Amino acid sequence: MVYLNGEFIDKADANISVMDRGFLFGDGVYEVIPVYNRQIFRLNPHLDRLQRSLDAVGIHNPYTDKQWQALIERLTQHNAFDNQSIYLQITRGIDSKRAHSAGALTPSVYIESNELTPRDQATLATGFSAITRADLRWQRCDIKATSLLANVMYSQEARSAGVEEVILHRDNRVTEGASSNVFIIKDGALLTHPTGPYILSGITRDLVLESVKACQINIEECGFSLEALLAADEVWISSSTREVMPITTIDGQVINQGQVGHCWQQVYEHYQQLKHA
Amino acid sequence: MVYLNGEFIDKADANISVMDRGFLFGDGVYEVIPVYNRQIFRLNPHLDRLQRSLDAVGIHNPYTDKQWQALIERLTQHNAFDNQSIYLQITRGIDSKRAHSAGALTPSVYIESNELTPRDQATLATGFSAITRADLRWQRCDIKATSLLANVMYSQEARSAGVEEVILHRDNRVTEGASSNVFIIKDGALLTHPTGPYILSGITRDLVLESVKACQINIEECGFSLEALLAADEVWISSSTREVMPITTIDGQVINQGQVGHCWQQVYEHYQQLKHA
Repeated sequence: MVYLNGEFIDKADANISVMDRGFLFGDGVYEVIPVYNRQIFRLNPHLDRLQRSLDAVGIHNPYTDKQWQALIERLTQHNAFDNQSIYLQITRGIDSKRAHSAGALTPSVYIESNELTPRDQATLATGFSAITRADLRWQRCDIKATSLLANVMYSQEARSAGVEEVILHRDNRVTEGASSNVFIIKDGALLTHPTGPYILSGITRDLVLESVKACQINIEECGFSLEALLAADEVWISSSTREVMPITTIDGQVINQGQVGHCWQQVYEHYQQLKHA
Repeated sequence: MVYLNGEFIDKADANISVMDRGFLFGDGVYEVIPVYNRQIFRLNPHLDRLQRSLDAVGIHNPYTDKQWQALIERLTQHNAFDNQSIYLQITRGIDSKRAHSAGALTPSVYIESNELTPRDQATLATGFSAITRADLRWQRCDIKATSLLANVMYSQEARSAGVEEVILHRDNRVTEGASSNVFIIKDGALLTHPTGPYILSGITRDLVLESVKACQINIEECGFSLEALLAADEVWISSSTREVMPITTIDGQVINQGQVGHCWQQVYEHYQQLKHA
């Protein structure tokens, strides 16, 4: 069962007009929200970010936070799985003619929830691979928008290369992954790109930073170079579905002798506690 | 009547699965092709560019040029208007699950054709207004992609400001408009941004250059600064639906005492001849 524009329907019946601006222009925003043990995890920060995305692109939020919560709860309760990943998308709506600009429309809303199966600690501890690419995306990566073709193209490259993620760099500074935030540990401190227009301020990024603080590791939100990435003691990526994942090979080059690091171990364990707090 | 995935149907019935990657990711490319006096105008350059866009994003072209032509002809013949604007869109297709990367899918194809009503010479000769903004778009503007949120945001700004177009500049060089190419005349020569990743190599841009050559005006495809834009003798924008349009006010500042220029006049008239050649 999914939710589409006021109705709970079978996913197979969830069709939208080709005139929806999501289909014609990628004119929409979205969120991905985890559910652990049937509890929606940190709903409010997600709804706050959704509002920021909507404000940035000038789409009216069709629901109050309470209405969003009720819709999401109904979907998650109907779903058989204890751990779920909620996907919700709002587009500017359906227009009568295709034109780049639009007047006031009724936003389209789509929500689905699927089983969430984060990789377990033993799998994560084997480490993952990434490749690096120049970050050619737009300069509003802080908006969680559905115009994702650049990210799709990077993800297609990752799939072809048989790696987990593409790590992006702009003017020789590592920004983020194609669908994750990126962190390194160097000499006992954690470095990551500061929030701003070049990265998505991930909710999971905040959780990782919260865990890092709890583990008494210093945080430097000042960014780092491509060379620093390859010379790091540890490299992690984070997203709501991957949680915090160690990267041990980048562009074929081994990081930390291919071993996941001690800091990751500590932070991963604290993150697991947060999930069930 | 529109065409959607193998069927000619009423536009009101043209619905697509929410799992189409066009809806979820803006994962598609498109073309806009004019029809004058029931003749498809310069179909081949459009189909060539479509192929380049498809190749760039790794989507298989589902039809041969002959098949495209047959589909488009059927739609245009069914349409009552002598002058039409064909819109065609190809997305990567419909997947079973939402994931940034996708395996081999059947591309989705949507085509519609609407009446084309370019503004007449008398209206154009009154001149149009534009505003300028920093070009924050991605660095693959050469791909005619449906991930158009940046362009939509600029067009919404133009609508709010009551102007025709937003003219974009990157590192103080004018790139193009939110949905047009941009040209200036200075001291009798035409300047425009060279083709490459920062602009869409417009078919209409080529037609304008063809007309400019025919009018024996020198062409410098070397780009120009924001200051040069505001100090230009003439400023034009071009697109398949706007043709070549004079801009006489930018950011509230009057260009050429608010008069459309002699070069525009000549080029416009040549362009009209090309349309009916």
